[in-house]
Amino acid sequence: MTDLDSLYKAIEKVTGKQRITREPEELVCHSFDATGRSVVPDIVVFPAATLEVSKILEIASSYKVCVTPRGSGSGMTGGTLPMGGGIVMAMGRMNRILEIDTENLIARVEPGVVTGDLHRAVEQRGLFYPPDPASASFCTIGGNIGECAGGPKAVKYGVTRDYVLGLEAVLPSGRIIHTGVKTAKGVAGYDLTRLIVGSEGTLAVVTAVTLRLIPLPEAVKTMAVVFDSIKKAAETVSGIIRESVVPRCVEFLDRASIDCVRKDVKLDLPGTVEAILIIEVDGSRETVEVDARKVEAYCHKQGASAVVVAGTPEEAAELWKARKALSPAMFKIAPNKINEDIVVPINRIPDMVAKIESIKKSSGLTVVSFGHAGDGNIHCNIMYDKRDKDQLKRAEAAVDALFDATLSLGGTITGEHGVGITKKPYLLKEVGPTEIEIMRGIKQVFDPGNLLNPGKIF
Amino acid sequence: MTDLDSLYKAIEKVTGKQRITREPEELVCHSFDATGRSVVPDIVVFPAATLEVSKILEIASSYKVCVTPRGSGSGMTGGTLPMGGGIVMAMGRMNRILEIDTENLIARVEPGVVTGDLHRAVEQRGLFYPPDPASASFCTIGGNIGECAGGPKAVKYGVTRDYVLGLEAVLPSGRIIHTGVKTAKGVAGYDLTRLIVGSEGTLAVVTAVTLRLIPLPEAVKTMAVVFDSIKKAAETVSGIIRESVVPRCVEFLDRASIDCVRKDVKLDLPGTVEAILIIEVDGSRETVEVDARKVEAYCHKQGASAVVVAGTPEEAAELWKARKALSPAMFKIAPNKINEDIVVPINRIPDMVAKIESIKKSSGLTVVSFGHAGDGNIHCNIMYDKRDKDQLKRAEAAVDALFDATLSLGGTITGEHGVGITKKPYLLKEVGPTEIEIMRGIKQVFDPGNLLNPGKIF
Ligand SMILES: Cc1cc2nc3c(=O)[nH]c(=O)nc-3n(C[C@H](O)[C@H](O)[C@H](O)COP(=O)(O)OP(=O)(O)OC[C@H]3O[C@@H](n4cnc5c(N)ncnc54)[C@H](O)[C@@H]3O)c2cc1C
Ligand SMILES: Cc1cc2nc3c(=O)[nH]c(=O)nc-3n(C[C@H](O)[C@H](O)[C@H](O)COP(=O)(O)OP(=O)(O)OC[C@H]3O[C@@H](n4cnc5c(N)ncnc54)[C@H](O)[C@@H]3O)c2cc1C
Repeated sequence: MTDLDSLYKAIEKVTGKQRITREPEELVCHSFDATGRSVVPDIVVFPAATLEVSKILEIASSYKVCVTPRGSGSGMTGGTLPMGGGIVMAMGRMNRILEIDTENLIARVEPGVVTGDLHRAVEQRGLFYPPDPASASFCTIGGNIGECAGGPKAVKYGVTRDYVLGLEAVLPSGRIIHTGVKTAKGVAGYDLTRLIVGSEGTLAVVTAVTLRLIPLPEAVKTMAVVFDSIKKAAETVSGIIRESVVPRCVEFLDRASIDCVRKDVKLDLPGTVEAILIIEVDGSRETVEVDARKVEAYCHKQGASAVVVAGTPEEAAELWKARKALSPAMFKIAPNKINEDIVVPINRIPDMVAKIESIKKSSGLTVVSFGHAGDGNIHCNIMYDKRDKDQLKRAEAAVDALFDATLSLGGTITGEHGVGITKKPYLLKEVGPTEIEIMRGIKQVFDPGNLLNPGKIF
Repeated sequence: MTDLDSLYKAIEKVTGKQRITREPEELVCHSFDATGRSVVPDIVVFPAATLEVSKILEIASSYKVCVTPRGSGSGMTGGTLPMGGGIVMAMGRMNRILEIDTENLIARVEPGVVTGDLHRAVEQRGLFYPPDPASASFCTIGGNIGECAGGPKAVKYGVTRDYVLGLEAVLPSGRIIHTGVKTAKGVAGYDLTRLIVGSEGTLAVVTAVTLRLIPLPEAVKTMAVVFDSIKKAAETVSGIIRESVVPRCVEFLDRASIDCVRKDVKLDLPGTVEAILIIEVDGSRETVEVDARKVEAYCHKQGASAVVVAGTPEEAAELWKARKALSPAMFKIAPNKINEDIVVPINRIPDMVAKIESIKKSSGLTVVSFGHAGDGNIHCNIMYDKRDKDQLKRAEAAVDALFDATLSLGGTITGEHGVGITKKPYLLKEVGPTEIEIMRGIKQVFDPGNLLNPGKIF
């Protein structure tokens, strides 16, 4: 019996035969994420309870075998690829909403809960969980915590970090820890909660989450604003909060994005469309009307060609359709994409847009830009064909140029997708060696054997 | 020349003669905080720039002498007391507002900026920095970061942590680090920013801060709500968000608090007042009127004896006067107080209030309760005379009972004051040994020599 066989047997005693596998097909299914890359693990386990997670980690660590936590594998930076081989721990079976406490505005959930399911469950009770990655219909709360996911509504409501009050998590040794609070506030000791949020599954496996909820806004108003110049659109994004209101989203689609989805979505657009903003305001019924009119007036002042305000939820859904259809539609342009989610200070969006235009020209590649522009977060998709060595080289040079431009404008190389493996070569552009040394030190404290999701971030 | 002499000389070369002292009077002035305890340092330095902080820390660490950062010394848990002797590093000279960026809604400040000064500066530009400890007129942003300070407006707007985007800080070794971003979002590597927030000056000395601002709400409405039963008041707090609106503050004053300030403040109160809530709503001019009426109606439904709505800013200021006068006025009751800032889930406030009543009875001491009840944060002040050994013993037993009650209701022993030295003996009641071991490990990564503010938290 090899070591792996005996490890398998040991874990099987914990999970039973049903929730562990090394069937090649199942291993492959758990080998990739949204980067399209694939690293095949040796074993996949599906724990159903915290104690199982604990026992599996303890066993794995006694065998010195790596474990990589996995939500839905929708990550954009390879966070869930098992670089060190070993075990992928798929958290999808731990998907119960444990409690929605309407008195204290708190939810307790297992990590495998799909974000969109939580949205619906709390909204039925008049509550609101704002973080809403565009992948909400399939990504998990555990993965959202791993990456500190954002989404369109971050403009007004912040990101996952801002809603995580406390965690139950398991250390690589198998020891179970509890961090944070079940209350609105708490400062007893170092903030281990926010340290684990965004740690990309490298410090501990999250097994339960206490989330803050807020009352569901009474009303929402959605509008699509069309521009015949990308510069005008960018300037509108950067001025809107200053000059009018704080919208809950300001999503941006450039010309290339619009072209991708034009055929799929009934969009009744004027002749020269260079950019669209999808803007949403929310609040009480009274304010929403007032705010929507302020935004409309501001957009017209900025030279928008058209402002289409959705009259009904169905019309609003129609406006969002184009935005949501984008990710898959892009592959019409080229078989491969490098997706970067850079952020710049909002008043530098016009400069960033200009830089992207020049990177497009110099690389000769199509770059599709869209994203959560309201907080300066632009998803830049560099489209190429990786079988073409020259295109690959140009794409890589384009990424370098993109990051350099971003950092020169005071931005960050990742707003919400994390570092994983794809941005690891670039981290030193943004984060200094002393800071990385501290991060490594922290990793060592949680995971002295470097067994939990090794090879990520730094 | 003793080691201390030569250390003094070495630092004097960095600061000049003016910004270092070991005059006994000056040492005493920097020996205490709001706990009333005093630990006299050997030296006080007043750095004026990041590079000076770096050089001083480097020198101190080569002498293996402790350094304790200090803001205004308004801390409630002894965070700035130099338990290890050595150097107090008073950050008050680094008090420049470096930039208020009205386009990106960001401020960059030095740590010695007084919180209230920042409030005024950003409000003049139509912006808002919500964290507002009641000590805002003298505490510093550096101290607020040290403790993750809250304040009344945390109900709606969150605490210091929620507004810190990035930090410049100096490690005990003297190495300068930069954490976080200047943008709305960012997830490149572990979240060192929020790890330093709330670390009570034990990980690094903060030398510059990037803060997120929001637009200043157009209008505010303040009201005082009077109750003839503490239970009714507590139930109103716990229901208000669920049943009406999210106010920006819900401050609570119990009977003992009201008695403390009754004479100082012109309060036109009905006969039997057992509790007062100060409630504030903010937003656009339209919503504020609507929301204030909703709150008023809800309070009447809950059996409030009176709801006094301030018609002008001056009337609102008058309503706040009682709340602000409280801290000093309490000493009328007894010469010493133990101030605890417990938090419970908001629907447990009525239970907590009952528990406090029973602790009052069993201890035979006056307990004054007031605070930021809207987020479940109640400041319990156990009044006693420490020269009386028996009172002292009863006061200590009361603290124990208070924390046990808080934790049994799902709460935390500190909402915003931190652990420091006063809550250190109780930390294990809330935080497990494994979690504390991790915190110690993190401390070791930042401060292997245990020279920065030793003896705190754990
Ligand atoms: C079409 C599309 C749109 C997207 N839109 C957005 C968007 O708008 N905003 C945004 O932020 N992201 C977006 N993403 C990226 C992605 O969906 C998010 O990063 C999401 O948070 C990943 O969740 P997941 O469950 O798929 O996690 P995975 O990809 O499986 O894992 C992500 C990371 O979290 C770790 N992890 C997972 N579960 C746990 C656990 N229980 N304990 C510890 N670590 C764990 C993993 O090890 C990994 O490092 C999008 C992706 C796609 C494909
Ligand atoms: C009357 C009164 C009312 C109060 N009301 C509130 C309230 O409503 N909400 C609330 O949260 N608190 C309140 N406090 C407590 C106190 O004001 C806060 O904790 C405040 O944040 C302390 O700021 P400070 O500048 O006085 O810091 P200090 O007391 O000097 O230091 C606090 C901690 O921060 C560390 N520190 C200070 N500067 C730095 C730096 N540059 N780098 C690293 N570490 C540093 C210190 O080492 C120490 O551990 C109140 C206090 C008083 C006296």
